[in-house]
Amino acid sequence: MALIVHKYGGTSMGSTDRIKNVAARVAKWHDAGHQIVVVPSAMSGETNRLIGLAKAIMDQPDPRELDMIASTGEQVSVGLLAMALLAIGKDAVSYTGWQVGIRTDSSFTKARIQSIDDSRVRSDLEAGKIVIITGFQGVDEQGNISTLGRGGSDTSAVAIAAALKADECLIYTDVDGVYTTDPRVVDEARRLEKITFEEMLELASLGSKVLQTRSVEFAGNYQVPTRVLSSLTDPLMPLAEEANSGTLISFEEETNMEQAVISGIAFHRDEAKITVLGVPDKPGVAFHILGPVSDANIEVDMIIQNQSVDGKTDFTFTVSRGDYQRALAVLESQKDVLGYTRVVGDAKVSKVSAVGVGMRSHVGVASQMFRTLADENINIMMISTSEIKISVLIDEKYMELAVRALHKAFDLEKA
Amino acid sequence: MALIVHKYGGTSMGSTDRIKNVAARVAKWHDAGHQIVVVPSAMSGETNRLIGLAKAIMDQPDPRELDMIASTGEQVSVGLLAMALLAIGKDAVSYTGWQVGIRTDSSFTKARIQSIDDSRVRSDLEAGKIVIITGFQGVDEQGNISTLGRGGSDTSAVAIAAALKADECLIYTDVDGVYTTDPRVVDEARRLEKITFEEMLELASLGSKVLQTRSVEFAGNYQVPTRVLSSLTDPLMPLAEEANSGTLISFEEETNMEQAVISGIAFHRDEAKITVLGVPDKPGVAFHILGPVSDANIEVDMIIQNQSVDGKTDFTFTVSRGDYQRALAVLESQKDVLGYTRVVGDAKVSKVSAVGVGMRSHVGVASQMFRTLADENINIMMISTSEIKISVLIDEKYMELAVRALHKAFDLEKA
Repeated sequence: MALIVHKYGGTSMGSTDRIKNVAARVAKWHDAGHQIVVVPSAMSGETNRLIGLAKAIMDQPDPRELDMIASTGEQVSVGLLAMALLAIGKDAVSYTGWQVGIRTDSSFTKARIQSIDDSRVRSDLEAGKIVIITGFQGVDEQGNISTLGRGGSDTSAVAIAAALKADECLIYTDVDGVYTTDPRVVDEARRLEKITFEEMLELASLGSKVLQTRSVEFAGNYQVPTRVLSSLTDPLMPLAEEANSGTLISFEEETNMEQAVISGIAFHRDEAKITVLGVPDKPGVAFHILGPVSDANIEVDMIIQNQSVDGKTDFTFTVSRGDYQRALAVLESQKDVLGYTRVVGDAKVSKVSAVGVGMRSHVGVASQMFRTLADENINIMMISTSEIKISVLIDEKYMELAVRALHKAFDLEKA
Repeated sequence: MALIVHKYGGTSMGSTDRIKNVAARVAKWHDAGHQIVVVPSAMSGETNRLIGLAKAIMDQPDPRELDMIASTGEQVSVGLLAMALLAIGKDAVSYTGWQVGIRTDSSFTKARIQSIDDSRVRSDLEAGKIVIITGFQGVDEQGNISTLGRGGSDTSAVAIAAALKADECLIYTDVDGVYTTDPRVVDEARRLEKITFEEMLELASLGSKVLQTRSVEFAGNYQVPTRVLSSLTDPLMPLAEEANSGTLISFEEETNMEQAVISGIAFHRDEAKITVLGVPDKPGVAFHILGPVSDANIEVDMIIQNQSVDGKTDFTFTVSRGDYQRALAVLESQKDVLGYTRVVGDAKVSKVSAVGVGMRSHVGVASQMFRTLADENINIMMISTSEIKISVLIDEKYMELAVRALHKAFDLEKA
């Protein structure tokens, strides 16, 4: 007997019939003798509907009141799922975040979980009940409802699994696992059976949007074995088969068994590059350029500062393509303060990354990556590296070619 | 400066534009220096949508889980109304029932309020905030969400007004007050400026469905001055005019000033009459006949037991027309136990009532009522009386005629 947390996304909860399917799947796990906690998202479309109502009233909805409203989608889901289980004869009970003491800070719309009181859930589980808890939300010290931001139900599920010291957290979603790269770009993309938290973090933040980044951090920090698997399979498929499907996000030691130097090729198509030319090279130049950009709530990714020549330097950084025009406007407004010559940019660039904990112990990964791109005549505009990742910025039109070439160069199609 | 509770129904909250109208009206009262608490219903249609989802999953939805779901409609409303006030520069904050300690029993879907902790609301009011609280719901001792049943937001508003010792509870609705009878039946029907709680109770339960019956009981028990008024007027109409519009439900002493013997003619069209003939007249006959009917969840209204002849009696009672066939079936199934000769019934009968505290101190109200009906050749099938009400059961086809004749006979068209 194990204690297992299931998380189901909005698509899986998208209609009353789909909710009945979720109930059948959950019941199968409970019938096998496991203790089950379920964290469902709001029905697909519901959170957007609620936010739409709020925006029709207030252009910039008040965050506390928005959380009051947005949290109701999950509350409806837990009640419906509990009913679907009761309707097939299982003992089930639903709770909101505040009912099981999911305490967060007061950063409404992007709150962080601080603690969970597991006593009520534990006693229900011991009484044989299936416990269903709202994702995405908690309550702050003053008793205000808070939400964790988009995708927050993943984080809720992992946090609840951590608090309960669950044996595994199963994230049911509309993909069947984490792939070596996007199968729509590379036919030979292969599902990974295991991946480390660190690799998953790089893959998630680089565009493989399977899991909310924060949930992966949480799983890593609290060492919660987390599995991403498909909710589109037959709910009554054999449990042993289902339990080994998808991709297990786990600890490095175990995952090393796969022996691959790198685990996957991630990419982010919609990047933009901005270069500030002829900036006087004095202390604080990076802060003075990026401070106003950051104040405008624009996220900066890669950053390069050139060697200075004659007391002047060039400063290059990337932003999401959607923020490109705004970033240019911010720099324009700071021209007098920054004293630069001019600003040039390119909004048709993409980032491609090779990710893998294996590169820690293998030399030559970077050079193999660069040679592969050179062989395809792809020019590299920027490079950034971390312990388990090498990213390059290239012309958007070569992105698919680069991903396919790298996928092949690192033998990722082979198990 | 007064402390005033406003309640708005689902129609008033039916769209984001209407919610902005509510905000404008509330702001007007707050601008005049009053402390304002607002209790809005769910947006019209929302509660039905939620119950529909529940029923698609479970024919007889589990009551606790149904309350978990149904309570979200009001939660969305309070958040939206708070935003609408914030958007026009008013300081406002929304709370769910559990956030302000609206404690109920655990009778899910029909819970009763036991206590309200007013401390949080009071401190917000003293800080100048407009406080918005979900209607229709509370929380039981175990922290489960409960709802008060259909129309429960009226009760919430009155209960909150009682807990805060508010100066008045204003129930904004889509009618502009309580009338001497239904204006669709009698052209001369007149809006009452005042009515007692007891009269309102009789009028509400007899079909003038302006307020949930329980809210009127609550207002009476806790002596909360409660006013029913229109939400369809211009939100910016002069406050002094608005404050005196509608109908004030108040204490007898004040209302006697209107001097009318009776206050209104209520009616209930869809009644049915059932007579059990030849029942052996022994102790407990009423219980043995009505017990099984009540067990089938059928509400019985008027009851008459004839003088017995030769140890046998006839027993007549009325039910809502919708329950007529079921009631007959119940009696049929009990034929052997009850030992009656046969059952006859009439599903085309209506009840007409004259209501007024004035009849306590005036003799001859009943005889005037009977003479009026006799003058119109309307046969009376059953009569029941209380301290402030006389009801007669008549053939459905004479109902409008009876209401019009009685309205005129008691001079109700005159102020």
